[in-house]
Amino acid sequence: MREKLRAIIESKAWEYTIISIIALNAITLGIETSQTVQQHYGPILRTLDDIVVGIYVVEISLRVYAYGLRFFRGAWNLFDFLIVSIALVPTTGPAAILRSLRILRILRLISVVPSLRRVIGGLVLALPGMGSIMLLLSLVYYVFSVMATQLYGETFPEWFGTIGASAYSLFQIMTLEGWSDAIVRPVMDVYPNAWMFFIPFILTTALTVLNLFIGVIVAAMEEEHEKEMEEHHHYVRMEASEIMKELRTLRQDVAKLRRNHKASHKQKVEMT
Amino acid sequence: MREKLRAIIESKAWEYTIISIIALNAITLGIETSQTVQQHYGPILRTLDDIVVGIYVVEISLRVYAYGLRFFRGAWNLFDFLIVSIALVPTTGPAAILRSLRILRILRLISVVPSLRRVIGGLVLALPGMGSIMLLLSLVYYVFSVMATQLYGETFPEWFGTIGASAYSLFQIMTLEGWSDAIVRPVMDVYPNAWMFFIPFILTTALTVLNLFIGVIVAAMEEEHEKEMEEHHHYVRMEASEIMKELRTLRQDVAKLRRNHKASHKQKVEMT
Amino acid sequence: MREKLRAIIESKAWEYTIISIIALNAITLGIETSQTVQQHYGPILRTLDDIVVGIYVVEISLRVYAYGLRFFRGAWNLFDFLIVSIALVPTTGPAAILRSLRILRILRLISVVPSLRRVIGGLVLALPGMGSIMLLLSLVYYVFSVMATQLYGETFPEWFGTIGASAYSLFQIMTLEGWSDAIVRPVMDVYPNAWMFFIPFILTTALTVLNLFIGVIVAAMEEEHEKEMEEHHHYVRMEASEIMKELRTLRQDVAKLRRNHKASHKQKVEMT
Amino acid sequence: MREKLRAIIESKAWEYTIISIIALNAITLGIETSQTVQQHYGPILRTLDDIVVGIYVVEISLRVYAYGLRFFRGAWNLFDFLIVSIALVPTTGPAAILRSLRILRILRLISVVPSLRRVIGGLVLALPGMGSIMLLLSLVYYVFSVMATQLYGETFPEWFGTIGASAYSLFQIMTLEGWSDAIVRPVMDVYPNAWMFFIPFILTTALTVLNLFIGVIVAAMEEEHEKEMEEHHHYVRMEASEIMKELRTLRQDVAKLRRNHKASHKQKVEMT
Repeated sequence: MREKLRAIIESKAWEYTIISIIALNAITLGIETSQTVQQHYGPILRTLDDIVVGIYVVEISLRVYAYGLRFFRGAWNLFDFLIVSIALVPTTGPAAILRSLRILRILRLISVVPSLRRVIGGLVLALPGMGSIMLLLSLVYYVFSVMATQLYGETFPEWFGTIGASAYSLFQIMTLEGWSDAIVRPVMDVYPNAWMFFIPFILTTALTVLNLFIGVIVAAMEEEHEKEMEEHHHYVRMEASEIMKELRTLRQDVAKLRRNHKASHKQKVEMT
Repeated sequence: MREKLRAIIESKAWEYTIISIIALNAITLGIETSQTVQQHYGPILRTLDDIVVGIYVVEISLRVYAYGLRFFRGAWNLFDFLIVSIALVPTTGPAAILRSLRILRILRLISVVPSLRRVIGGLVLALPGMGSIMLLLSLVYYVFSVMATQLYGETFPEWFGTIGASAYSLFQIMTLEGWSDAIVRPVMDVYPNAWMFFIPFILTTALTVLNLFIGVIVAAMEEEHEKEMEEHHHYVRMEASEIMKELRTLRQDVAKLRRNHKASHKQKVEMT
Repeated sequence: MREKLRAIIESKAWEYTIISIIALNAITLGIETSQTVQQHYGPILRTLDDIVVGIYVVEISLRVYAYGLRFFRGAWNLFDFLIVSIALVPTTGPAAILRSLRILRILRLISVVPSLRRVIGGLVLALPGMGSIMLLLSLVYYVFSVMATQLYGETFPEWFGTIGASAYSLFQIMTLEGWSDAIVRPVMDVYPNAWMFFIPFILTTALTVLNLFIGVIVAAMEEEHEKEMEEHHHYVRMEASEIMKELRTLRQDVAKLRRNHKASHKQKVEMT
Repeated sequence: MREKLRAIIESKAWEYTIISIIALNAITLGIETSQTVQQHYGPILRTLDDIVVGIYVVEISLRVYAYGLRFFRGAWNLFDFLIVSIALVPTTGPAAILRSLRILRILRLISVVPSLRRVIGGLVLALPGMGSIMLLLSLVYYVFSVMATQLYGETFPEWFGTIGASAYSLFQIMTLEGWSDAIVRPVMDVYPNAWMFFIPFILTTALTVLNLFIGVIVAAMEEEHEKEMEEHHHYVRMEASEIMKELRTLRQDVAKLRRNHKASHKQKVEMT
């Protein structure tokens, strides 16, 4: 019974059905944002939405039943479980925020489409290698945020009043958006040496982000190279083994010659 | 007759003639944008333009005649056909839009100049490998657009009133143009937690675009490597085959020795 | 005694203790930026801070004692020494600047955590290879700064009044922040040909920075390749040595054959 | 006489002297931009400047004399010649422009310092490989400039009034500086579909520039690889040649064996 269910769940037909339902849901959630549509077809759309959530719940339940506790060991299963759980939170509550989270459901497409799963998997695998640089970036960020708050917090409370505000403003400066005209030039009108704080910040973060970037490229290349390396080793091994085969035959030839020689020598000795 | 025509069409002289006509047309279309020029030389320029379109039509017709139905199988032929078709649409109609499309004609330069054709070909070949990441980016985009419309649509109708407006504003934010001062700071004045929506959006799209970018670089490298690999395998094979040749000669030497030995042994046996 | 101390200092437990103290100090320095916190817990935080500085001083002293003069030969030791020295500068002096420098202390985390030390080490090692391009960039920068001051200094003193102001404005232009709307368009209202100065500047610096960037990537790859190369050479050598071993055995076989032959020939000659 | 002169010109001492003079000139030209300095030390600085130009002229003349007509075949010699010629143009003429060109003199540093010469040489060598993409970018640029002029020229003469203005505005849009808030949003207020023109422009140029970028990286890698390849081929050849040497010795051993055998056989035959 469970195995039969597993066969169905893992079939291509099932996969395409789920993808279609998610795509349909994506469209209904999209057109729901239009107020005219909501006024005229609101109840229909909401009913459709409830049906889709129902299908999701049934699908997840079937998978939990089919795989048992093993279900909760797969990262993508947990991802699906979380997304369906969010879908079940009552959306009639306080505000637009909870209702807006419904669209997250269509992220299930990532766990259903194998190629998307692979892309995300690749991103996640690249993360640990980036750990040190991310830690360094956080450290730099924290140091500059605290300093900005102490140096410019009182004069420019909107930008640097608290550590949070400073972190946001420094993030804006790091993205180079309006860093000079909107922030640093006004600050320099009060503190003429402010460029000695902000330009090193820009250069430091640019260098760190550049390093992060290079780390990701080199990691991607490394993977590529490893495959190539293996292929090349295989090639060298193949050629070498062919030479070895020839050498062994040759050795056998010499061995035969030696046996012949010995035999003929022995014969001769016996003869005499 | 058709073969003769094909020989002409594929000749260098023909290619250079077409390139010259396109270049000339590029210039006339360029100076037509000046109003003073249009007032004084408008009719002449328009006549010149008509002549060029005429030449285009004749050229395409000759190629269709020369290659028959095979003409429509080449992607670049279809490209040329489309561009000449646009040129034939009456430009006296509604508005400046149709007239402005005439400049697209000079894009024929791409299909005529072989090196440009190769660049575009390379770009097109790189696209399918990027499919999954493009799909992921679209998905992320759609989710954030729907959420932005639901969360901030009512308060900021100009930026997030509809899914289309949200998509445009999010594209602007993704390019980091005025994302903070022009959009996120005003939104944060009403919704202080808006940064929890926009900064993850910036980070997610930056990461995805970075991945797209790395994918393209790695693909370009891979191609490069494959050539290198082949060259290297060829080199190893060459060295190995030289060793093999030497080994085979050696084996023949040993074989001869054995034959000699056998012969001398046999002789000896016979003698005794 | 000194060796015992060194064993303690180099132990994992010591490392984690120091990391914990730095992390704690990071938090206290962070919450000190809040004015409400400072009003209520100011004295406690300051006492805590003094204790941490005390621990730092003790730790450095122990290390100086344990390693003697060798201590001052390590770059990271000097880094720690400098940071602790800054911590000892009285912070009750003129202004917020000195007090704000205290947060630099948590940069000691870099010298304590090995992975961070490696990242910074990598950055520092990449610098000398970039020397020529940095020099070129400085040269381009200086030339454009002097020219901007001479050309636009009188009309736009705020942006180009002095070489320093020009360098700052050109840095802003290089980061593409508001280069056109905030600077070049206003300049072009007075000097219509100003784009002939600024667009070449943007292209030149973009090209140079791009080169810097490529230099860093290629250097990172090179390192990667060298390892790969060694691995590959090792592989080829291994295969070749196996062939050589086989060849030597073969040669011994042939040598034995020759000895036998000679022996039997000698015997025969003697016999006759 | 000429050879002696050449020896002097090519000596390290001469090189360092010239570098020092250029560096000194760089400083005097820099401080000349300050108006207070100019009022007090103007005549001295101008005299110094004249002396430097005199040295430049003498140096170039010596080199022309030393190398004869061959001098004009070196690209860097022509570069120096051009820069010194600019220095000789009277700077008392019309305006600040000519005077500001004097700073270009310090670019001679590039032709004097070997490492800078190599960086520029590398850049110049990378250019021809980029030709096709540059041509494509120009073509795309021209098409979009003409279209923008025809579509939006009348309504927004300041941005798109002429092809030149359009090209400038599109360059600004390509650098993503204020593309949306400062240009596209105002245009969209009049032409709501303007995003259908500008967003494809941004994507097309971003893709083309990305390709240019990748082309440069791949070219840099290729060069790197070639060296690596050669090294690797050398390694394989070395190992293979060692095997070959062993094989040849072996063959000689077998040949000797054969000669012995033949000799002993012949002897035996003779004996009988």
